Amino acid sequence: MTVDPSILERIIPSAEEKERINRVADEIREKACQELARRNLDAEVRLMGSVAKGTYLCDPDLDIFLLFPPDFPSSRLEEEGLAIGDAILKGEKMYADHPYIRGIYQGLEVDMVPCYDICDTSCLQSAVDRTPFHTRFILENLDEKMRDQARVLKAFMKGVGTYGAEPQTRGFSGYLIELLVWHYGSFQSVLEAASKWKEGLVLGDGIKNQSMQGPLVVYDPVDRRRNVASAVHVDTFALFITAARAYLRHPSSLFFFPVPRTPLTMDEVKQRMDGRGSRLLTVSFSRPCINHENLEAQMWKAEEGLAKVLESLGFHVLGSAHVVEDGLIFAFELEDDVLPPVRLHVGPPVWVSEAERFLHKWKEMGLDRPTIKNGRWQVMVARDPRDAVSLLQGEKERISLGQNMDVESMCVHGHQDSLQADMAVVLSRLLDRRYPWEIPEPQAE
Amino acid sequence: MTVDPSILERIIPSAEEKERINRVADEIREKACQELARRNLDAEVRLMGSVAKGTYLCDPDLDIFLLFPPDFPSSRLEEEGLAIGDAILKGEKMYADHPYIRGIYQGLEVDMVPCYDICDTSCLQSAVDRTPFHTRFILENLDEKMRDQARVLKAFMKGVGTYGAEPQTRGFSGYLIELLVWHYGSFQSVLEAASKWKEGLVLGDGIKNQSMQGPLVVYDPVDRRRNVASAVHVDTFALFITAARAYLRHPSSLFFFPVPRTPLTMDEVKQRMDGRGSRLLTVSFSRPCINHENLEAQMWKAEEGLAKVLESLGFHVLGSAHVVEDGLIFAFELEDDVLPPVRLHVGPPVWVSEAERFLHKWKEMGLDRPTIKNGRWQVMVARDPRDAVSLLQGEKERISLGQNMDVESMCVHGHQDSLQADMAVVLSRLLDRRYPWEIPEPQAE
Repeated sequence: MTVDPSILERIIPSAEEKERINRVADEIREKACQELARRNLDAEVRLMGSVAKGTYLCDPDLDIFLLFPPDFPSSRLEEEGLAIGDAILKGEKMYADHPYIRGIYQGLEVDMVPCYDICDTSCLQSAVDRTPFHTRFILENLDEKMRDQARVLKAFMKGVGTYGAEPQTRGFSGYLIELLVWHYGSFQSVLEAASKWKEGLVLGDGIKNQSMQGPLVVYDPVDRRRNVASAVHVDTFALFITAARAYLRHPSSLFFFPVPRTPLTMDEVKQRMDGRGSRLLTVSFSRPCINHENLEAQMWKAEEGLAKVLESLGFHVLGSAHVVEDGLIFAFELEDDVLPPVRLHVGPPVWVSEAERFLHKWKEMGLDRPTIKNGRWQVMVARDPRDAVSLLQGEKERISLGQNMDVESMCVHGHQDSLQADMAVVLSRLLDRRYPWEIPEPQAE
Repeated sequence: MTVDPSILERIIPSAEEKERINRVADEIREKACQELARRNLDAEVRLMGSVAKGTYLCDPDLDIFLLFPPDFPSSRLEEEGLAIGDAILKGEKMYADHPYIRGIYQGLEVDMVPCYDICDTSCLQSAVDRTPFHTRFILENLDEKMRDQARVLKAFMKGVGTYGAEPQTRGFSGYLIELLVWHYGSFQSVLEAASKWKEGLVLGDGIKNQSMQGPLVVYDPVDRRRNVASAVHVDTFALFITAARAYLRHPSSLFFFPVPRTPLTMDEVKQRMDGRGSRLLTVSFSRPCINHENLEAQMWKAEEGLAKVLESLGFHVLGSAHVVEDGLIFAFELEDDVLPPVRLHVGPPVWVSEAERFLHKWKEMGLDRPTIKNGRWQVMVARDPRDAVSLLQGEKERISLGQNMDVESMCVHGHQDSLQADMAVVLSRLLDRRYPWEIPEPQAE
């Protein structure tokens, strides 16, 4: 089984497109060299990333690296790197280990990144110093045909929603995708293998360490202490397995080029909820001024933190979702959003000294006398309030949010209040459980 | 602080009472000797238990032991023991390690028990062979005054509901009570110590073994491998601590002679439930023909088993109780007895082979598509039925009951059906959470 030629045609850039990209890359490299000469700096300019490796899709980003000698002072590396990037790109300052400049040049997004030209990954000064080794490894180990296979796998990962190591996707980086093709040989064989993957898979040889806890470990062939798949979340891993199985069963272009999802209308949302009997809860926060990646990581953490507190209060979370819009919005589907009027409050064992205080307090406030169960005091107490909105508000200090999120801006909306037009996107994400490849093409009239 | 003389007077038998008891004991012993002689048997008759030890309360049981030589055949020991008991008591056959006869003689309950006259507890042939050693130990180590202290502690334990090692009480045996007095010196000092007891207490020296898991270990001074307190449940342990503290704070005769509890009327039951909002559930079974002790042990097991299944179904048990009447009845107080219409059904990890079967089944039956969470498939399903009665009935094969209980006779009653006159006793036990000493004396008119 091979990928349909009409699909390949849409994935692999044409000769003209390749030429255009290379021309732009050469132009920038030339300019950077001139800037370095003008400043009397002994550094090398090198094209990196997917364009250098020949594994890029349409409209790739360009990664231009400025390689300074290892003894070049770190503060000057930053300063000169930013100045050169700024002179050519007039872009924005971005942050990785070191700041760098991102801008647009002739319609392409360009990152200009200063790093150290080291001879060995054991002398790393920052994570970007590893990139030149990755580029070289792929160029030396993947021939033209395999690079195209990497492009196909990348397009598939993009289509099914597993591409990208950033917190939003928690998925497979470009380099990881290239290594998978190198390991298994082709797009098809990666998918066949993935359809049989199990959690805890290890590919390649390396030096195992404690932090390699994820569902997938792929040792970096240029640095055996590193897991290239460390960003892959178990749910992204499972999603890729699911997508691979689905594609092998019924291959289709929808895996590569899914139909964009139209958010559910509020009528559709209401229809789904009516038939079901579950309850909605939405929680919004003001949006902090931090970069998108960092914010996404905090969104995942907060979604988990909110769900945890809801569960600890006695609610059962059926599903959850989040979006970043003007504000941050989280949506939860709950079994029920009002708890029964009574609950059991479990206290300390009878023999500890706090027991007297517990008894004293609850003899008055309990609905009944405290009793002993499994050696502990317990007492029936009235639940007041009983609704999810008030209960969650009351526990807001206990929710583990992202560090830049403002708990004071938290606003909790009950079922009816959540069924508003401005919640359509987050509710759609919560309730539209179709995979990207399951969304049908619009019917021609 | 000493115990009020008017209380002591009610606890310690009078000289006349003692004389009467001794006379009856002598009489039975005499008769047993005659029976042995008549049968040409070389065995000794000895009075055991609380009467022999001088630690009995009013209307004690008499324990008459027939001590046979260790080489006497076990089958004949049974046969002759039963025949002699039967000849004197015309009583009922009871079962311990060996069968024995229980009957009434001049108004006193008498057990006539055959055992082996061994020289050392390491040569035990059955548990009753240990009894003569217990009797001798107490006689040698507790003087007249301390025996009376044991009587006071026994009366206290009886009053507060912690006396008796049988499954109904899960508490302190007579011998254990005597050892506590021996260990601490007096009734008062046992209570003072108990008010500071903690779970895991060990008294005396002995040979620890794996099975000594309870809240209290008291090594048997006549057999260091044995925990005399092995029957003490953690809740009985906690109850005794609580009673000791309460008595030391406000001593009263109510701890020794509690006012009998009048079951709540159904009106009182309804009143309590109305104010509270929780829900009742009762479960009844036909009564199997087994002895009371064995049945009580099975009742505790079944109460726990029923509560466990209710919790696993999603209900929250606030309290439970049981009674043995014409049938077996269990009562539960639940937070709520109807669950929400939807629930999450968590399936296997995506990568196991059962996953395909799960998907296949729930794609049709689920309320929505299965989704991946933490690497596992999960799906929202309609809960049907949703009420505790139907759900518990549906899970009856899964309930861990006592081995002689008939699951087919199980009958589950919902809230309204439980509010019937014939449930008064079990509901009273469930809802009247007062300790025995908290029930006030009826007011004189």
